[in-house]
Amino acid sequence: MDGRTGLPVVGMVGGGQLARMTHQAAISLGQSLRVLSVNADDAAALVAADVRLGSHTDLAALRGFADGCDAVTFDHEHVPGEFIRALEKDGVKVYPSADALVFAQDKGRMRERLAELGAPVPRWRRVTKLSDISEFGLPAVAKATTGGYDGRGVWMLEDETQAADLIETGTNLIVEERVPLKRELAALIARSPFGQVAAYPVVETVQQDGICVQVLAPAPGLSEQRALEAQQLAIDLATALGVVGLLAVELFETDDGLIVNELAMRPHNSGHWTIEGARTSQFEQHLRAVLDYPMGETTLTAPVVVMANVLGGAPGGLSIDERVHHLFAEDPGARVHLYGKQVRPGRKIGHVTVLGDDLAKVRARAARAARWLQEGN
Amino acid sequence: MDGRTGLPVVGMVGGGQLARMTHQAAISLGQSLRVLSVNADDAAALVAADVRLGSHTDLAALRGFADGCDAVTFDHEHVPGEFIRALEKDGVKVYPSADALVFAQDKGRMRERLAELGAPVPRWRRVTKLSDISEFGLPAVAKATTGGYDGRGVWMLEDETQAADLIETGTNLIVEERVPLKRELAALIARSPFGQVAAYPVVETVQQDGICVQVLAPAPGLSEQRALEAQQLAIDLATALGVVGLLAVELFETDDGLIVNELAMRPHNSGHWTIEGARTSQFEQHLRAVLDYPMGETTLTAPVVVMANVLGGAPGGLSIDERVHHLFAEDPGARVHLYGKQVRPGRKIGHVTVLGDDLAKVRARAARAARWLQEGN
Repeated sequence: MDGRTGLPVVGMVGGGQLARMTHQAAISLGQSLRVLSVNADDAAALVAADVRLGSHTDLAALRGFADGCDAVTFDHEHVPGEFIRALEKDGVKVYPSADALVFAQDKGRMRERLAELGAPVPRWRRVTKLSDISEFGLPAVAKATTGGYDGRGVWMLEDETQAADLIETGTNLIVEERVPLKRELAALIARSPFGQVAAYPVVETVQQDGICVQVLAPAPGLSEQRALEAQQLAIDLATALGVVGLLAVELFETDDGLIVNELAMRPHNSGHWTIEGARTSQFEQHLRAVLDYPMGETTLTAPVVVMANVLGGAPGGLSIDERVHHLFAEDPGARVHLYGKQVRPGRKIGHVTVLGDDLAKVRARAARAARWLQEGN
Repeated sequence: MDGRTGLPVVGMVGGGQLARMTHQAAISLGQSLRVLSVNADDAAALVAADVRLGSHTDLAALRGFADGCDAVTFDHEHVPGEFIRALEKDGVKVYPSADALVFAQDKGRMRERLAELGAPVPRWRRVTKLSDISEFGLPAVAKATTGGYDGRGVWMLEDETQAADLIETGTNLIVEERVPLKRELAALIARSPFGQVAAYPVVETVQQDGICVQVLAPAPGLSEQRALEAQQLAIDLATALGVVGLLAVELFETDDGLIVNELAMRPHNSGHWTIEGARTSQFEQHLRAVLDYPMGETTLTAPVVVMANVLGGAPGGLSIDERVHHLFAEDPGARVHLYGKQVRPGRKIGHVTVLGDDLAKVRARAARAARWLQEGN
């Protein structure tokens, strides 16, 4: 508790864009997010007042950071579980807990637990040697059990040669069937220690080369029954796994129903649209959850909300500042979020959100806005 | 320009809640607001990364602060005009300029200039001795020419004794007729150096004991003609006075039309509703204006938006954190903004915003939300 303001202090481990946007939300609540950042020029470290430089793989740094925090939470999944347990033993309120977070950290553990819980998962198995893949059958999808994101750590295996090359890298792997999916959806919910849950409208995540390029809220043409099913699945998983804070459940929609792809227990790219598109943003909701505040309304603020990710484009051409000028001139209603990152090709440097009534028009505007920032034309 | 991000640096002189909320807006634009703050625990200094401690009445501090800023702007009106001129001579882009800001700093200069421009003003005169007031006639409203806000620096004079007491304090004064007003309105616009102007919907500001308690957007029952008249007046004044950034024109609505009460050239309390209630918040709009970015959309995001100020209540009872809990439990849709200030009776410590369709219901919710934070019941 901040003795001067009488308001709580939340610490977020990791100084990326999720911490950056969580700090924005914290400011409204009278707080100032405490950030543990590896570098002084990480996205959140550039904008937050209470930044501690240190690594999430250094227990002493984590302990010093947690001291005085009312709750500690995460910008990423990379804090070792044993360190989270050590903080928990120190009496720190860490959300999600080590016991919950492991299912977002380790895809093998996640698949096992989801299967136990009867949640819909693809056919899968752990891989330790090439024959595990051969027996499973090709083509298949191989995934690193830990550390992958934004299409990294996922390989589409077509033949044994590719499989053998991957095995040789020594990466811990699981292999999964290629699900004949119609599209990808995401169900985002928040859960408090008290057990209150708030569910956001289910969204469609549009992927390109394994990277999410657009999020459509609400998921177009999704039946109410299917949407409720996705929300209930996320709520049941959060409850069963003991998640506190946000839980994003990435889903495949198939002809036969929903299949769980991935879990994330933090603010998630599929929820960035909530900053303007929902009454309560996912970032404020995460803070409310980890502080055991009652949850905020999750209703949409417009019939259609589209978020488009902005990746760093090829160097040259207009400067980023000139691109912002052009975008603002072309679309005064586009909402821009830049993360303060140096532009590198393919790096996620921001996102844009457009709200409106007509899905095709809103999608086109969002794509155009992202292109201005990404390509400068 | 920030060499690393390629995005501009705006400096705001003053570390109050306006700078705090402008920093929130800057973060979205990929920036980090630079703040010149008198105290390390001022509202903005608690949450911004780039805080320089120093006084706005210290030219050397202002010069050091301005160095490296793409534009310098203000959280308040208290920077001496000659210091702003010195910065301008140094080549700093200061918005509003000294020539414009003087009309928000000095009510005498403002009244003179507005009269010259043919803008509707109350009958008024400068006061140097008691007979100036006697000749003007009582009852009347006396105003300190500089430094007043939130009802401070304004006196309702009923008789000569009160007038004599006020004269004795040595305050620089003007005296004005008591306008037979129906209600108070505010017209908020933003203007860029290029000359682009964006106008927000005209709002009603509900006053109690000289302090604004609620802002109703759009102003209920205001005819389109009157609304356009108010917006055009604000645009004409901004253009005539050379304002860059936001201009808030506080207006009296009378049976005979509009009368200008006050001018402010910065984000203004009457525009806090825009954070959730307009497509572009006044804070982002101010940044866009001073950076000569194209302006953002000003359309409402809901049919009715009500902002209620939260003043520090009497000590005792529930803690501020408990009050937040209760408010969130009672109204999950209320949007809370706390400024990180220590609670002192009567001090503006935050605001709440409620959006909806029905004015009476939205007003009641906003009042109830403010009361939870203010009174704890």
